Order: sequence, then structure tokens, then C-alpha cells
Amino acid sequence: MKEEISNWFKALQDGICAGLEDSDGKGIFRQDHWDRPGGGGGRSRIISNGGVIEKGGVNFSEVSGRVPQALIDSMKIASGDFYATGVSIVIHPINPWVPIIHMNVRYFEMSDGTSWFGGGMDLTPHYVQASDARFFHHTLSTLCNRHNPAYYPRFKKWADDYFFITHRKETRGIGGIFFDHLSQGPQSSKDQIWHFVQDVGNAFLPIYTELINRNKNQKFTDQQKEWQYLRRGRYTEFNLVLDKGTKFGLETDGRTESILMSLPPQARWEYNHQPDAQSLEGQTLTFLQKDINWLDNA
Amino acid sequence: MKEEISNWFKALQDGICAGLEDSDGKGIFRQDHWDRPGGGGGRSRIISNGGVIEKGGVNFSEVSGRVPQALIDSMKIASGDFYATGVSIVIHPINPWVPIIHMNVRYFEMSDGTSWFGGGMDLTPHYVQASDARFFHHTLSTLCNRHNPAYYPRFKKWADDYFFITHRKETRGIGGIFFDHLSQGPQSSKDQIWHFVQDVGNAFLPIYTELINRNKNQKFTDQQKEWQYLRRGRYTEFNLVLDKGTKFGLETDGRTESILMSLPPQARWEYNHQPDAQSLEGQTLTFLQKDINWLDNA
Repeated sequence: MKEEISNWFKALQDGICAGLEDSDGKGIFRQDHWDRPGGGGGRSRIISNGGVIEKGGVNFSEVSGRVPQALIDSMKIASGDFYATGVSIVIHPINPWVPIIHMNVRYFEMSDGTSWFGGGMDLTPHYVQASDARFFHHTLSTLCNRHNPAYYPRFKKWADDYFFITHRKETRGIGGIFFDHLSQGPQSSKDQIWHFVQDVGNAFLPIYTELINRNKNQKFTDQQKEWQYLRRGRYTEFNLVLDKGTKFGLETDGRTESILMSLPPQARWEYNHQPDAQSLEGQTLTFLQKDINWLDNA
Repeated sequence: MKEEISNWFKALQDGICAGLEDSDGKGIFRQDHWDRPGGGGGRSRIISNGGVIEKGGVNFSEVSGRVPQALIDSMKIASGDFYATGVSIVIHPINPWVPIIHMNVRYFEMSDGTSWFGGGMDLTPHYVQASDARFFHHTLSTLCNRHNPAYYPRFKKWADDYFFITHRKETRGIGGIFFDHLSQGPQSSKDQIWHFVQDVGNAFLPIYTELINRNKNQKFTDQQKEWQYLRRGRYTEFNLVLDKGTKFGLETDGRTESILMSLPPQARWEYNHQPDAQSLEGQTLTFLQKDINWLDNA
């Protein structure tokens, strides 16, 4: 089954890159093949200085080998051989009114026969717009509900908890869905979970295309671009300090340039920057909290 | 003795801020007092958009209370009460020919009666200039040799090892000296170590003033400013992924804005950026390695 999954992920990468190039209208993905010394490798695809996208990556990888000691220690995984394949996406748009998006779908298989899926999709708007947030969460909840009514509430909360910048006491963005260690059980077969993961992957392009089209022509000021840089600073803090995938990749000697494609093209840090509570920036901060019900909001 | 040390650190902060304002010619430090819920607090002083300094912080803190669990676990420290005081400095200059500098002096005391000093000073040039590197290391080695001939070789190596960006396989800059858990023993009394630490603190201003004066009027291009942003990206990676002080501060609920004053005003990440080996940028990369003897070099 892993070949089927891996081939599907490769085709997903192809389709998403083609679709994003269409939406962007100018940028072209550049591909780097890489090999992992311990086994496997990947193809990283990066787009820069496009018409809509300032910097983005759509990465596929398929790695295998002995479980690295760091994984055994940090993720409580049994020693033995592992196989992992997935697609990871982060897009940093030029226009601060277009949100940053992140999507990941992944599959693990261990030599003891266990296997599981993980992934999710979450949105980091520089300016939270309720209508976009509702569209995003509504699309995800509809998608989840087609598979299991327990999924959306559970995976939405998981995203809120995961994408939380502890030292800032704020969420990275407006969340979305996040799930890990999803494997067959009394309620769902492996095939059913795999179809759910495929649905998540397939949802990326229509969702982000819609968000791009809604916002790409909105005018923005230099001051709004500065705010975008500050928000990208927070994105950087989350990814470098807290993100488990980034940490795992760097500690297990992964391909640094592929792992850190998630970092923004440009970020700012200003000491103790506090926007006026009434400003658009100040209002956005009030939305960077856990447990907001985006479906009924606004 | 801890009051003497803490008062001396406060006076050091005052002197360094006054001296940096003189060198800068335009920027003024802004002070924030803060209290630590568990005990103690600090005074953070930040300078922004100066004549020479783009962003810098000179922070004093004096904190005490029960040893946080995170410290017991990560630093193998006994439980009980602790007292810690220190000065921490990071300066990001406007001109890419002026290096980033970092200095720290600190003192710890535990309720079981043990106490120690830590600290150091290290340089992160955006462009490595051998004459500046030699001046910096020569000044530090002379200073160390006045106290103990074993200090410079030991603390220089410690800095090389500490300021190493593992996932990039490069040092953060050209190092300097780094030391920790320095306490009295057969070779030195507590007073002797304290005098050494004072010498390190006192060396900061003359060293950085000299480096500013040497380089602040050097012309730079937009492309050199871009390179500075990329190097600041690496500085950010080190501080957020690897720096133990930053990690400790964030995990023990320290004052985030004071801890992250070390981050640059603006940083860039460009996918797989590789300067031409013959360029000034490419040459700088060859110097970002451990175990370079800067005293004899060039």
C-alpha cells in the first residue's frame, strides 16, 4: 500500500504546483531532488518572487531506514525500520491580505507492522477576516463530516493546541485541523482513513485558490506590509522554537533547506510592538486565541 | 557578595548604555522595568533606529526564587532556591561592515551554598575581516592571560563549540570566549574569578567602540545589506533553535520581549542561497568554522 500512497502524494504535489502556478500567474516552481544518506529522499519544489506568492514550498519526501535514536527518544517510537512519506506545503504571499497557508499529509509505517497517517491544514492570516476564517473552517468541517462527525471538533482543537506560541500566549493563526497517529480501529478501516487524508490533500488547492482570488487585488499600504513582516516574525518563532516537525528534521540531520523552506522571505522583530487596540492590527490580535468557534462567528 | 555583584552589573549596564549612545550619536536607550512573578525582575534597555545601531539591547536582571522544574531537568541543577543576576547584550548595527556583538556576564547562587559565574563575548561579522577578528581575539586573549593562561584556549574552544549552528554546519560568527560554572577551586578564589568576570564586562565598550569606529563609515551596497539580512536569518536560527539561554528563558516563562531582544530588526531567508565562492560573501563562509586560530591568522 505504501507505493500507492507515495505515488498519490507525488501526483498531489504535481497537481498543487501546477494549480499554484496558474493562480500565481508569474512564478515557476524550481525542483531539487535530494537523497537521504540513511535511505530515500525527496523532491523539494520552491517558488519565489511570483505574482502572488513571495516565497513558497511544496515538498514531497519518501524516506526509510533504521529509526533514528532521536525519534525513539522524543516520539516514543519503537526501534526498528521505518518508512515515511508525505507532502508539506507553506506559502508566504506578497499581499498581506492573503493569508499564509500550511498543509501537510503524511504516512508512517514501522517494521513491527504498525502504520498511521498524520497531517492537517491551517491558516495564518496577517489580518484576520471573519468571512475568510468562516469559509476556511466551514470547508474543513464539511470535509471532515463526510468521514466522521467526531473529526472536525477533535482535529480543530488539536490544531488550536498545536499551533500555540506558548511564550507569546497567542495562536500562530486561526488554526484549522491537525491530526496524528490516525490508524485503523473499530470505527474506521485503513482505507477509510486514507480516503480522508486524500480528501484533505485534495482540498488544499480549491481552498487556497479561493483565498488568493478573494484578496490578491486588495490594496495595501507600506505600514500593512510592515505588519506582515512582524507577523512573519511570529511565524518564524513558532517554526523554530516549537514545531515538532522542524525540530525532528533538524535533529535527525534532514535536508536543512527543505525543512526551513517554511521560513518567510523577510521577517521583522520590533521590541515590544503593541498596536492600538482599535486598529486592524489590534483587532487581529484578539482573534489569535484558542477555542474560537469560526463556524458561527461573524 | 551577591549585592556587590548585582550593583556592579547595574553600573556596568549604565556605563555601557552611555558609551554606546556616545558612539551611536543619535539613538537613546529606552528602559523598561519588569518584575518576575516568582521573584526579582530586571531593567531592559533597548535602542532602535540609531545612527550606527539598528537595534540593540543591554539588559540587566536579578531574579530569585524556587528553582524552576525546567532548570532542574535541563541543567542538572539541584532543587531549592536560586539567585541569578547578569547583564546581556546584543547589538545589531545598520552597516553590514560593523559586526553583530553579543556579551553576557552572569552570577548564580544556590541555597545549598554553591555559586558560580558564567559569561563571554562573541562576534558575528556579516563580512569577516581578518584584522577585526585578530583585534577581537587578541584583546580577549590578553585579557584572559592576565588571569589564567589556560582561560583563553579553553574558553575560545568553548565558544566555537557553543556558537555552532548544527543544522548549517557553520559557526554563528568568529566566536570569542564562552565560560560557565566557573567557581573557586585550587587555582582561583571566588574573588579572582569575579575580577575576571569584571574584566570581561569592562572590555565590552572599548572593543565594540573600536569596531564601530573602524567600520561605521565604510560604504555598503543594497546587495551587501541583503547579505546582512541573510546572515541575520542565521543568527535567528541559532538563537531560536539552539541557544540554551533563550530556550531556558522561554520555557521558564521569562519576559519574552527581554529574551527576544536578541533577534534582529529584519531578517531574510532565501531558499538554498549560495554565494559565489570567490565573492566576499563566499569568502566569509569559509571563515565560519571551528578551531580557526585568529591570533596568528592574517
